[in-house]
Amino acid sequence: MVNVIDITDADDPRIDDYRNLNSSDRRPDLPGGKGLVIAEGVLVVQRMIESRFAPHSLLGVDRRLQELGSGLDAVDVPFYRVAAEVMDRCIGFHLNRGVLAAARRSPEPDLDTVLDGARTVAVLEGVNDHENIGSMFRNATGLGIDAVVFGARCADPLYRRAVRVSMGHVLRLPFTHLPEWPAGIAELRSHGFSVVALTPDPEAPMLAEVLHDRGPADRVALLVGAEGPGLRKHTMNACDARARIPMAPGTDSLNVATAAAVAFYERLRSMQLADVG
Amino acid sequence: MVNVIDITDADDPRIDDYRNLNSSDRRPDLPGGKGLVIAEGVLVVQRMIESRFAPHSLLGVDRRLQELGSGLDAVDVPFYRVAAEVMDRCIGFHLNRGVLAAARRSPEPDLDTVLDGARTVAVLEGVNDHENIGSMFRNATGLGIDAVVFGARCADPLYRRAVRVSMGHVLRLPFTHLPEWPAGIAELRSHGFSVVALTPDPEAPMLAEVLHDRGPADRVALLVGAEGPGLRKHTMNACDARARIPMAPGTDSLNVATAAAVAFYERLRSMQLADVG
Repeated sequence: MVNVIDITDADDPRIDDYRNLNSSDRRPDLPGGKGLVIAEGVLVVQRMIESRFAPHSLLGVDRRLQELGSGLDAVDVPFYRVAAEVMDRCIGFHLNRGVLAAARRSPEPDLDTVLDGARTVAVLEGVNDHENIGSMFRNATGLGIDAVVFGARCADPLYRRAVRVSMGHVLRLPFTHLPEWPAGIAELRSHGFSVVALTPDPEAPMLAEVLHDRGPADRVALLVGAEGPGLRKHTMNACDARARIPMAPGTDSLNVATAAAVAFYERLRSMQLADVG
Repeated sequence: MVNVIDITDADDPRIDDYRNLNSSDRRPDLPGGKGLVIAEGVLVVQRMIESRFAPHSLLGVDRRLQELGSGLDAVDVPFYRVAAEVMDRCIGFHLNRGVLAAARRSPEPDLDTVLDGARTVAVLEGVNDHENIGSMFRNATGLGIDAVVFGARCADPLYRRAVRVSMGHVLRLPFTHLPEWPAGIAELRSHGFSVVALTPDPEAPMLAEVLHDRGPADRVALLVGAEGPGLRKHTMNACDARARIPMAPGTDSLNVATAAAVAFYERLRSMQLADVG
């Protein structure tokens, strides 16, 4: 059960973890200098509570406290109850979601743990936009991806915007960072994964064909790169196969999160629908 | 060839069409009270020039004028050349794309015109977010959709944010609004379109199966509804078929633009890959 503490002064140091939220991604006082993990809104706060990122406090208006209701039964931390104006003054802007939770970053699981039992994983290189990272986690969860593996040059999945856009799924879907890149691709292959790299190259075989050659029981890693430059050549060479999404001639490539969603869909489709042409 | 006119005063009335751009979507002085169509950045300005929305002026810094180069050869309107600070003061914020073009809204083509020669169209109901509308046009263009038909309660595709997110494709991909909704669905059917409504209902058949039953030569309309409520019941009843995208159990539905992209992909796939399982 949360310990409800009423706060009437926006400058109260007990709510410092929520102060000036727009710049709270830099926290020189914390390990690595990165911010706390912040969940915004009832749905994402609920997901944080059920995740490995246990909140150490919550801040919100009474209405959201009531909405969370029994979802807080197992949570033994302070809920700082404030008026909406006090919340706005503390965080530095108006957040109409009305409730926040803060958790410390916990160490990432290692690759073995993340891959345990996984049949399909997404691997990202150079996806340096928090919104795209967030969208990818939402799409990955919805379309049956078991884990996300980060290669080089990606944005922080635990940044507040990524958490929000993912609808909290970055807190739930297992992920890890490969320390060596693209060398780490070999580790995926040694775990039995067939690594399929998405490319806009019109010479590459179609994704549907490439995934059709890999059965539902085969382990597949779908490698997605940055929107502009795409995957680097060294990365591409380390993979088992290249695959393209069909595109209308003369058009831009898809947004990277959308392209990833199409790839996740094709994989889920190939696992569920081996009998449909 | 554009007529380059140097402007040094941010208050010059000749650049009023670009003034306070964040609120320029309301223009009581224009027909319907809606704003001009505004293109931002070199790529989108180029697309506007090639579209049915001929700009009546451009505003930008010299560097962007040079980048546009011969793309402006056929354009016989003023290019108001300004310093970056003058541009920022006029439009009310800093736009690092550095060039804008403004066009009047032209009348929409009618349904017959839009459907002429089209094999696959997207039909939207209740998509009331400009960013989702923009994403949908980008995805639709990339994935071979021939036209977009608007049902009820959708956001304005010519709003500045929609134009930007679409990367200018709202200016190129034909679209029209059905005056009667959902009665207009019958008009699509009378044009020979099989109207397939996307639904998250787990009882509905899989999209891949529904589209597999319709050949590449068949006309297909893919009907997509708002993210939260989905399509209305009356709308659903007016369609030929319902279809769902497979989803992992217990997850949120996909963002509406992502779900539409998956549907567009499945249709393109079924047209190109009748032989792949």
